[in-house]
Amino acid sequence: MPQPDHISKLGVPDPAALDEDLQVIWHKCVDKLGFVPNVFSAYSLKPQRLRNFMAMYNEIMLSESGLSKLEREMVAVVVSSANRCYYCLVAHGAAVRMLSGDPELGEMMALNYRVAKLDRRQRAMLDYAWKLTETPWLIDDTDRAALRDAGLTEQDMFDLSETVAFFNLSNRMASATDMMPNREYHRAAR
Amino acid sequence: MPQPDHISKLGVPDPAALDEDLQVIWHKCVDKLGFVPNVFSAYSLKPQRLRNFMAMYNEIMLSESGLSKLEREMVAVVVSSANRCYYCLVAHGAAVRMLSGDPELGEMMALNYRVAKLDRRQRAMLDYAWKLTETPWLIDDTDRAALRDAGLTEQDMFDLSETVAFFNLSNRMASATDMMPNREYHRAAR
Amino acid sequence: MPQPDHISKLGVPDPAALDEDLQVIWHKCVDKLGFVPNVFSAYSLKPQRLRNFMAMYNEIMLSESGLSKLEREMVAVVVSSANRCYYCLVAHGAAVRMLSGDPELGEMMALNYRVAKLDRRQRAMLDYAWKLTETPWLIDDTDRAALRDAGLTEQDMFDLSETVAFFNLSNRMASATDMMPNREYHRAAR
Amino acid sequence: MPQPDHISKLGVPDPAALDEDLQVIWHKCVDKLGFVPNVFSAYSLKPQRLRNFMAMYNEIMLSESGLSKLEREMVAVVVSSANRCYYCLVAHGAAVRMLSGDPELGEMMALNYRVAKLDRRQRAMLDYAWKLTETPWLIDDTDRAALRDAGLTEQDMFDLSETVAFFNLSNRMASATDMMPNREYHRAAR
Amino acid sequence: MPQPDHISKLGVPDPAALDEDLQVIWHKCVDKLGFVPNVFSAYSLKPQRLRNFMAMYNEIMLSESGLSKLEREMVAVVVSSANRCYYCLVAHGAAVRMLSGDPELGEMMALNYRVAKLDRRQRAMLDYAWKLTETPWLIDDTDRAALRDAGLTEQDMFDLSETVAFFNLSNRMASATDMMPNREYHRAAR
Amino acid sequence: MPQPDHISKLGVPDPAALDEDLQVIWHKCVDKLGFVPNVFSAYSLKPQRLRNFMAMYNEIMLSESGLSKLEREMVAVVVSSANRCYYCLVAHGAAVRMLSGDPELGEMMALNYRVAKLDRRQRAMLDYAWKLTETPWLIDDTDRAALRDAGLTEQDMFDLSETVAFFNLSNRMASATDMMPNREYHRAAR
Repeated sequence: MPQPDHISKLGVPDPAALDEDLQVIWHKCVDKLGFVPNVFSAYSLKPQRLRNFMAMYNEIMLSESGLSKLEREMVAVVVSSANRCYYCLVAHGAAVRMLSGDPELGEMMALNYRVAKLDRRQRAMLDYAWKLTETPWLIDDTDRAALRDAGLTEQDMFDLSETVAFFNLSNRMASATDMMPNREYHRAAR
Repeated sequence: MPQPDHISKLGVPDPAALDEDLQVIWHKCVDKLGFVPNVFSAYSLKPQRLRNFMAMYNEIMLSESGLSKLEREMVAVVVSSANRCYYCLVAHGAAVRMLSGDPELGEMMALNYRVAKLDRRQRAMLDYAWKLTETPWLIDDTDRAALRDAGLTEQDMFDLSETVAFFNLSNRMASATDMMPNREYHRAAR
Repeated sequence: MPQPDHISKLGVPDPAALDEDLQVIWHKCVDKLGFVPNVFSAYSLKPQRLRNFMAMYNEIMLSESGLSKLEREMVAVVVSSANRCYYCLVAHGAAVRMLSGDPELGEMMALNYRVAKLDRRQRAMLDYAWKLTETPWLIDDTDRAALRDAGLTEQDMFDLSETVAFFNLSNRMASATDMMPNREYHRAAR
Repeated sequence: MPQPDHISKLGVPDPAALDEDLQVIWHKCVDKLGFVPNVFSAYSLKPQRLRNFMAMYNEIMLSESGLSKLEREMVAVVVSSANRCYYCLVAHGAAVRMLSGDPELGEMMALNYRVAKLDRRQRAMLDYAWKLTETPWLIDDTDRAALRDAGLTEQDMFDLSETVAFFNLSNRMASATDMMPNREYHRAAR
Repeated sequence: MPQPDHISKLGVPDPAALDEDLQVIWHKCVDKLGFVPNVFSAYSLKPQRLRNFMAMYNEIMLSESGLSKLEREMVAVVVSSANRCYYCLVAHGAAVRMLSGDPELGEMMALNYRVAKLDRRQRAMLDYAWKLTETPWLIDDTDRAALRDAGLTEQDMFDLSETVAFFNLSNRMASATDMMPNREYHRAAR
Repeated sequence: MPQPDHISKLGVPDPAALDEDLQVIWHKCVDKLGFVPNVFSAYSLKPQRLRNFMAMYNEIMLSESGLSKLEREMVAVVVSSANRCYYCLVAHGAAVRMLSGDPELGEMMALNYRVAKLDRRQRAMLDYAWKLTETPWLIDDTDRAALRDAGLTEQDMFDLSETVAFFNLSNRMASATDMMPNREYHRAAR
């Protein structure tokens, strides 16, 4: 039985009818990645929401930070693992494989990050990501102290927390729309 | 013992040193509300993050939608109740009281929304908000069908889902920073 | 949509038909508080049960103890927060505000006690109250030792435990009957 | 290694020093049961608390009700099973065995009531007892309707709910004090 | 209402039609125990599955090991308590009573092992059994170190883990088939 | 940082020192798969345990059954997903990809089986596998009826249940030993 080929259960508008700024982005994606990520297509149902989502995404995942891009992708996958989000695990699992050149690391982040061999700082970051995702109400000074002890600055802690927070948003948009990842992610960097 | 008077455990920069566009917003807040919401102060640690957060917030909570502003605030409070987020319960609980003119409704949303007298559409929205917050991986076609049966369009479902998703982000930023709400919220619209 | 105006979903007998001793109590309540607490009305469905409930309540909450009346009310609210009991959060949240003169403290106890600034003894009491409510089977000598270390005597530990236990009873009676709190509590001591 | 022989980890006063009314009860227990139930000894640390506890216990478990005494004991055991309360499972498990003459029924109530062969009314009562114990905040009109459909009156529903509520109190007192049951219960009615 | 008298809800083949090797075992059971354990009857629906189950059971529970037979039965009961498995709690609870000569120990293992008086090594084994049953994904080097500190060798840890794992299998077979224990277990070694 | 290269945290004996029957199996594995599955190496710490494990595994996964081999592997992966077992997700995820020729299906089973497009019978099997894994004590006649309605016979239900049960065993052995999967699985059938 062939797997689902929808992008979003709430429907996706005709890309040819999108505003010009979005069409430009669509073309750039095809040039660079070979495809338009389905999260953009799903979000294009409400164009201004998409613009805000992309602005926030780019700032959190791609701007300067004390956390490397790989570390931010690792956090993304661990949050998505806690929330069992199919779209984000497939898309950001691929990103971990690509950025690390280590296919097993991607699998470990997606399936159970505790089995991975990590330095103390990364392990502290991922333990925090899991707790802030599952029981945010229990986060207290002890958790912040553990991050400081592992070498994170206040700015790093802000960036880490916002990465966790953002994927708690995007995991829920993906689950809400039954968003399916582009098939290209599955084979990438295996 | 006096209650905490910090704004964020990650520190808050001097407002006088903020970029001009943010200072303009700070002044507008004081004019309109009498104070700058602490979430803005806490987020000003990273100004571009704040701009993105405000853009997303304004679009989700204030733009045209099939969900009324009160309904969006009710969703915000129910999500924050599931996540036991002090900042958001205090600030958005006040918003429900103000927009509804019904102080009890605000309390019910914060403490246990199931005791409130709601029409079927609102109850369906809040049940969905709770489930998408607590177990996003269990959301399926049945849940989307229940919303449709209660009268929501696809666009309404997108707006509802993004409101839920957004407060799952902001609840975690508040917990991560131990964000304290402005005291003015406590007495508002009681 | 006006909020519910029932007192109990199991019905409430005509107060004029109650036994004389209860009528005397009803009058005292009106004299002192301005109203009869709805928990008494709900419980008057079975008068002897009400008498026992009031006797136990008065002894636990009002008799001499190493725990102050405010501390006992704080425990009541924290237990009710774990159990998300609307009636008890509203009624005893008001009591915390009144006894402490600190409206924020009442909100913190109801929404997430971990954000409050408390001395070590009070924090230990509330952590114990939460654990004894949520996972009583995990309470062991370690928990009793933590209370002793925080300065509680055996008698204090008995009183604390019985307060926790009692609100685990009354939370369930309130949920079982969908008990609605008197509206006067909402505005009290804001 | 011999099993614990303490009665309560908070200590038990010398029975010879108790008030006369309690000594009378102690003697009656020995006459009737052959021993003083340890819950009384543990509670005698605070004599007035014990009097209130006994008054409430007797009314709930022994007074006239639409629920038989056996049914009330079955509810007591199912609540204690959810809370994994050793004292109450041993003492009230024995009561189910004695009142029913069916040793297996006592075991089923303690270990997993869902395996027992029960009529629809009893099964509805025990399902309600489990839910009101584990997630009281989710109880709503649907649950009350299920009880009504199974034949319970409003008075029966009050009695059932208070039995559930009471054992949520006593389970926590037993866990708080690490209360050990009298050894006589183990062999009774096997 | 008499309790259930089925053996398995998936049906049990006529013992007279079983292969000869199984009939020999049936006879040995009757000779030695007075009855054929119902788990064998239930499993005989698929004879080769039964042979494998018995081989594994005998090796784990009866072969040479650093864990005594009593300790292995204690682990069996604690795992079955976490999984609330009626069949295994009744059958192996009886085994703990018989092997220890201590009826209370059997009850403690079944109802809440934390109340038992155990040496440090046994307590460490049972804490591990509970955690490996409830949250196997959280087991890490800390847990293995705790066992080593309590005196277990690598071989002991293997045996302990396989006992835990095996009862997580057999608990699920019992729940899947609603397997009823032989009545003889109830009275044994009380 | 290179990922872990141990096989089991409890150690692995020298394969050259294994009994001859096991050496024969080791050679067959290398011939057929190119490697010895690490679960065999880990289990060879106790050779008789390994023999029993292999006998049970082969019977459950490879013998005649109303469930196809692919379906049994799907069940294996869904159980391992509930238990977040790295070893089994990697090894049996590869098996699903190989047997189905559908790499996405393997990912869906591992990450959230609810997003897959399945026929009613397979969906019923996987829902049952999840429930029997997470809350075996709640399985009752309703669950068995759902399987029957989806077309399963009593023998099929036995096979399905034993597959679920077996992976609840093997997931725990993998977590107990921090078992690492052979690297070959990662790239297989992508």
